[in-house]
Amino acid sequence: MDLLKQRIQTDGLILNDSLLKVDSFLNQQIDPELMMKIGEEFANRFSNEKITKILTIESSGIAVSVMTGLILKVPVVFARKKKPTTTTDDVYTTKVYSYTKGESNIITISKKFLSPEDHVLIIDDFLANGEAAAGLTKIVEQANAKVVGIGIVIEKSFQPGARKLTEAGYRVESLARIKAFSNGKVQFL
Amino acid sequence: MDLLKQRIQTDGLILNDSLLKVDSFLNQQIDPELMMKIGEEFANRFSNEKITKILTIESSGIAVSVMTGLILKVPVVFARKKKPTTTTDDVYTTKVYSYTKGESNIITISKKFLSPEDHVLIIDDFLANGEAAAGLTKIVEQANAKVVGIGIVIEKSFQPGARKLTEAGYRVESLARIKAFSNGKVQFL
Repeated sequence: MDLLKQRIQTDGLILNDSLLKVDSFLNQQIDPELMMKIGEEFANRFSNEKITKILTIESSGIAVSVMTGLILKVPVVFARKKKPTTTTDDVYTTKVYSYTKGESNIITISKKFLSPEDHVLIIDDFLANGEAAAGLTKIVEQANAKVVGIGIVIEKSFQPGARKLTEAGYRVESLARIKAFSNGKVQFL
Repeated sequence: MDLLKQRIQTDGLILNDSLLKVDSFLNQQIDPELMMKIGEEFANRFSNEKITKILTIESSGIAVSVMTGLILKVPVVFARKKKPTTTTDDVYTTKVYSYTKGESNIITISKKFLSPEDHVLIIDDFLANGEAAAGLTKIVEQANAKVVGIGIVIEKSFQPGARKLTEAGYRVESLARIKAFSNGKVQFL
């Protein structure tokens, strides 16, 4: 997706040889028009699939997921990294390790939001080691629902997440695939 | 906003005399079309104002804010409840107490996303005691920017937040204003 790659080149900040900061349009400041174009792209790429629900994780996955859900006319469910006080329901949980943060989070989703009839598109902002996306697939499978595919905004292809998920049989669609950071520039695949 | 009030009546769950759970369309599962209609309503109510930025707080404020930002063609910035690992910037911070969770969070925003020229619309999902919204106004004022108004999806008018913010001089626009919960029903103002 050229528009996204251009934006990463102009506004992304390379922090070290594996960390890219895109907080000016995705992770803290959000560009709603870009989010809509990303939503359209996900909807296009998965247009041959029957999708009943989008699943993401708070917080940076929410904006693109809601735009995708608007186009596909399906609800979005986001996993929480902390059990909310107002949840008295049964929940699905799984542990997700974040290499960036160096900590594990238990992510939770109320059981009532996933059913065996659901065909679920998983969406997330980044794919690096694949821990968050793999955690979301585990939750879908706990619900006996079907993972239709995994839509990723930015894939760091030099880290093993995309390969691991593809080898596990999931269809991964990443809109920007980064080969490396070299000389302060982002190299795309 | 009648569509929203109807949805609260049909899908909201009253947990006790002050807690309403709307996680089937706003707080965990999100209805993107309803979010878009809420965005349109906020854009309408503040149509006489010059707005350069929308400010919200993760996670439940993001979906409505992004829709409002899409219509108004302005960026959305969300405050984080935890400082992200990839933030090396100077940040504005303030402490926000959550009565629902019984804990305080330090919320942060990178300084680069607010400037003295900004006219900021603050958006949040719930207004009860007003701690989160007041925290966001403090951050806008630390940046010497202007708070144009505060857009709230659901106001619990029997709690003091709306009154306190109005008395402090802010324009508060709440799309559903709840007077009380009685006999298992939501009573609107």
